Amino acid sequence: MIAVLKPSATQEQIESLTKWLESRGLSVHISKGDFCTILGLIGDTSQIDTELLGSLEMVDSVKRITEPFKNANRKFHPDDSIIDINGLKIGGAHFQVIAGPCSVESPEQILAIAQSVKASGATILRGGAFKPRTSPYAFQGMRGDGIELLLEAKRQTGMPIVTEIMNASHLPVFEHVDIIQVGARNMQNFELLKELGMTRKPILLKRGLANTLEELLMSAEYIIAGGNRNIILCERGIRTFETYTRNTLDLSAVPMLKELSHLPVIVDPSHASGIARLVQPMSMAAVAAGAHGLMIEVHNDPSKALCDGAQSLTPEQFAEVSEKVRKIREVIK
Amino acid sequence: MIAVLKPSATQEQIESLTKWLESRGLSVHISKGDFCTILGLIGDTSQIDTELLGSLEMVDSVKRITEPFKNANRKFHPDDSIIDINGLKIGGAHFQVIAGPCSVESPEQILAIAQSVKASGATILRGGAFKPRTSPYAFQGMRGDGIELLLEAKRQTGMPIVTEIMNASHLPVFEHVDIIQVGARNMQNFELLKELGMTRKPILLKRGLANTLEELLMSAEYIIAGGNRNIILCERGIRTFETYTRNTLDLSAVPMLKELSHLPVIVDPSHASGIARLVQPMSMAAVAAGAHGLMIEVHNDPSKALCDGAQSLTPEQFAEVSEKVRKIREVIK
Amino acid sequence: MIAVLKPSATQEQIESLTKWLESRGLSVHISKGDFCTILGLIGDTSQIDTELLGSLEMVDSVKRITEPFKNANRKFHPDDSIIDINGLKIGGAHFQVIAGPCSVESPEQILAIAQSVKASGATILRGGAFKPRTSPYAFQGMRGDGIELLLEAKRQTGMPIVTEIMNASHLPVFEHVDIIQVGARNMQNFELLKELGMTRKPILLKRGLANTLEELLMSAEYIIAGGNRNIILCERGIRTFETYTRNTLDLSAVPMLKELSHLPVIVDPSHASGIARLVQPMSMAAVAAGAHGLMIEVHNDPSKALCDGAQSLTPEQFAEVSEKVRKIREVIK
Amino acid sequence: MIAVLKPSATQEQIESLTKWLESRGLSVHISKGDFCTILGLIGDTSQIDTELLGSLEMVDSVKRITEPFKNANRKFHPDDSIIDINGLKIGGAHFQVIAGPCSVESPEQILAIAQSVKASGATILRGGAFKPRTSPYAFQGMRGDGIELLLEAKRQTGMPIVTEIMNASHLPVFEHVDIIQVGARNMQNFELLKELGMTRKPILLKRGLANTLEELLMSAEYIIAGGNRNIILCERGIRTFETYTRNTLDLSAVPMLKELSHLPVIVDPSHASGIARLVQPMSMAAVAAGAHGLMIEVHNDPSKALCDGAQSLTPEQFAEVSEKVRKIREVIK
Repeated sequence: MIAVLKPSATQEQIESLTKWLESRGLSVHISKGDFCTILGLIGDTSQIDTELLGSLEMVDSVKRITEPFKNANRKFHPDDSIIDINGLKIGGAHFQVIAGPCSVESPEQILAIAQSVKASGATILRGGAFKPRTSPYAFQGMRGDGIELLLEAKRQTGMPIVTEIMNASHLPVFEHVDIIQVGARNMQNFELLKELGMTRKPILLKRGLANTLEELLMSAEYIIAGGNRNIILCERGIRTFETYTRNTLDLSAVPMLKELSHLPVIVDPSHASGIARLVQPMSMAAVAAGAHGLMIEVHNDPSKALCDGAQSLTPEQFAEVSEKVRKIREVIK
Repeated sequence: MIAVLKPSATQEQIESLTKWLESRGLSVHISKGDFCTILGLIGDTSQIDTELLGSLEMVDSVKRITEPFKNANRKFHPDDSIIDINGLKIGGAHFQVIAGPCSVESPEQILAIAQSVKASGATILRGGAFKPRTSPYAFQGMRGDGIELLLEAKRQTGMPIVTEIMNASHLPVFEHVDIIQVGARNMQNFELLKELGMTRKPILLKRGLANTLEELLMSAEYIIAGGNRNIILCERGIRTFETYTRNTLDLSAVPMLKELSHLPVIVDPSHASGIARLVQPMSMAAVAAGAHGLMIEVHNDPSKALCDGAQSLTPEQFAEVSEKVRKIREVIK
Repeated sequence: MIAVLKPSATQEQIESLTKWLESRGLSVHISKGDFCTILGLIGDTSQIDTELLGSLEMVDSVKRITEPFKNANRKFHPDDSIIDINGLKIGGAHFQVIAGPCSVESPEQILAIAQSVKASGATILRGGAFKPRTSPYAFQGMRGDGIELLLEAKRQTGMPIVTEIMNASHLPVFEHVDIIQVGARNMQNFELLKELGMTRKPILLKRGLANTLEELLMSAEYIIAGGNRNIILCERGIRTFETYTRNTLDLSAVPMLKELSHLPVIVDPSHASGIARLVQPMSMAAVAAGAHGLMIEVHNDPSKALCDGAQSLTPEQFAEVSEKVRKIREVIK
Repeated sequence: MIAVLKPSATQEQIESLTKWLESRGLSVHISKGDFCTILGLIGDTSQIDTELLGSLEMVDSVKRITEPFKNANRKFHPDDSIIDINGLKIGGAHFQVIAGPCSVESPEQILAIAQSVKASGATILRGGAFKPRTSPYAFQGMRGDGIELLLEAKRQTGMPIVTEIMNASHLPVFEHVDIIQVGARNMQNFELLKELGMTRKPILLKRGLANTLEELLMSAEYIIAGGNRNIILCERGIRTFETYTRNTLDLSAVPMLKELSHLPVIVDPSHASGIARLVQPMSMAAVAAGAHGLMIEVHNDPSKALCDGAQSLTPEQFAEVSEKVRKIREVIK
């Protein structure tokens, strides 16, 4: 870490700051120029708050040489992490397609969709049981019962399942869930991340609506700090001023995250735009950008499609996306 | 709620949609124009997901006539809500100044600051015990012990205290806390909001970094839906592209929230900019804009000020802000 | 256009508003419900300012049924527009790759790059002559002389050229330029757009840093309103809170613009991220998302690469991108 | 300027970079640490593009010690600039209120408003003649004729006038205009800024919708670089994700700009929110934050108010704002 001090910094201030930094276990290398003084901080700087340091009167600016995330950092782990999900692999050269409905609604619904998406190339089943809803008056999901239905679909199809957790106290219900999803709104629910770090479950960590890539990796770091290295990162759109799409899918995040970290990176094109007809082009773009997987919403019941269909594909549309994605995969391999 | 259908919507589609809406307990008033068909939905539309409805193929757009928040809505509660905090009032004509350190660090520190800010006009003491930190390696606060120290300062000064909760399972520790703060990162931690709705404690609800005013009021609605109407809203800066300030304080939120809701609205100028020297002008501006209160960070120990001081005022600076705010209050009353 | 009036609107207000709208040449269809009054406005509503109308006291909300852009709208022009550039076509099934340096620097430089990118598959040559620079002290481009050098490269290679205009008074110098570029900062320089509408030159219109897709299409509308229909839209990244990349490339804009408009849409992956190593994955993603073309920065002189290279590819890197893009094109055709 | 090189930078690369920097007239001070190499660049670094330098492979980061704006910088001009407008002063302790209609519409309209706002305390008259409109089909203003009417109102009331320019070729028509306004959309129309730098007219420079404070000051620098130091900065709201207000008024910009620059800073509360009833609280807040002036839209004709009134005050409302602002000014003096 480099701290550039202002020309106005007095000798006394510099000494006081140096002493304080040394008390934090860092060694300080002072380089005095004609026009400013630079402190080079050596040691474990991950516990230093750059924002705090940078806003001291005497400090002009602070710059990390190493990113604040260590365990998630590719520098210290050059090889791709490959996450094992009951024998299925994701990361490196391994690519997986997650598909399923927004919410689990009934035994028939989840099983029919599971069978359909499996036939079209999906390898992992998704389905919402605990649903984060903006309104307290909206359907909050089937909760524990929904997870039971997912587990039944898993037994019948053999597909691993992924579903979202909203509270660490629900963890016992997730015992047989293969991948636990942390939703965008909980990306910085640090108490939840700490609890998930205690498990050894694969965690699908979604980027928050307004979170930077560094913050996403810091949240991954929370989980790894607890001992759980099984993390899959997921880009799902960020909040911008554009209104035609619900969120703006940030596909540059895919190559950028792959450069910064060894963790697998997947893309959710359904939630990003909120528009079913954008799912196909954005799925193809995500794969061309190098994503390790996709997570796509599929519904099955045409009569219900009425209010399920906003961002979900029909099984036929999903089959078409699945086939095109396969071809793009061949090109970029 | 109004749904405008596309000219291409068939009679069959319109009937199917109407039937579905009626099955949700709404009555549907169809108005056919030469150029489009408009459905007027009457009844309790708060459970209808406008985003979902709006993205159906046949639907051009959906517009609520009434906001999705009911209990927090001024329309149904024209008078200002006044929250009682152990006899101290906030809302309506009642104005309060909350002050204290970022983190509780020791018995001496918190007591000294409490006495100092009380002398300068603060009426409520703040102090962080459970600290949400981006990095797992950063100091996470004194947690339960910090709350003990706050309670001791409360006993000695008589000031009510406010401190942040991060997990509903910690609620027992907050038994004697006067106001429970929900931080920006937990504004949409719906499971936590539900639990706080079960209590009758005053809740200080901070706006999320990238959340709209409507989302803030929907989160308040979660708490009220559980039966707890003691909510204080807090604007603390939103995430934008500007980099000189950490966040952009959105002061229009003050008159806007006061128009939309009956709940009191306060402003935290310390966290918004992250720069101590902006706290005075932005405190004055917040009060001139009509805020019901301020929440200001103050530190006391000049030797520690080194790494505490980024956004905190010294007691002397706080006294000056407090005096100027008092004068602005006289003008706008 | 639909205007929903508030329940509080009086009969007198409604009549006054209706009269005013009729004086603008619209017919007004009033539909009174139990809970609100809806005005359906029929006729040429493109001259009505929805923002203004929507903020009248009596008006709850205003919604366009038709987009405010007419000539750029696919609804009124279902077939893809195909722009002819000296015999070269872009739009529909026609795909073009534009490549060249950030700035024209010397006859040798521009000719060498032109020959190199042509050999690797580029079909149109780009090069900056008039350079919009944030700082008045930075190099402002070779201006008119730069255009002379581009024209010489065009003569020697046969490639059409594209270069940016910053002021309508420079138009005479652009007489032999094949495509005139309007940069992101001038997207809403309406006086310039009007002048370009008077020409019949193909215009490459870049999306502004913080402009919505609707605003981009309204700026295209300015050019078409003058009689010039030869417009190529270009997505080049929008301003968000993310800091790892300079801007956030919004690839959803590609399918969205193709749905809203008949005009060709290309992507500039070099300026969006500002990072050369993201150009390859984002080029592939843009093509997979359905772009009609790419615009890529290439430099040639390794010794100069020092301060040219931030977002530019070497000719070798460009050849690799070009080859991969060709393969993706085959899949999506 | 400080450039931090990566540990992987070779001796050869460092020498090559140093040579290149020296060829730009800078002296380079190399400081080698155990963990990185730091280059301190001394001399006129304003012409160095930090973005370009920072994205070289060998460079970890670049940090300016001095801001890239020199003439607009308070460091080199500690005293407040005071701009003289025909004897009226703005800046330092001098405060002015600009008021008038959105567009000039008729001799009667502009004169009536001018007289009315003058009576209520406005000191400068505003009125749009050349109007930047998103749609080519919307009213583009009375243009030259509108300026004639403003000049007539000036003659009759003695108030100096301010109106917007959209194209340098219109400058002759602005000969007798007292303050020339550059609108938000033209803030980075560098060719226009250069031409305005050649005049000695006071320029009211509005911040662009998505421009940082640094970019605003760099645009001021363009004007000063031409020799014209008479610049008034204006905050008018930035584009964010919030939708209740049209833009988000960034009042932190006021104290921040006053710290960074010596130029006067005013606030336009009318355009920021687009809502008339927010103009009063935000005007008071702007003054409490330390603004040197306000620019407020006022309309006069109640029958026309219909489609003029969105963000404009009536003369009575303006008089009330004017009076409250006067009282706030007394407090903060």
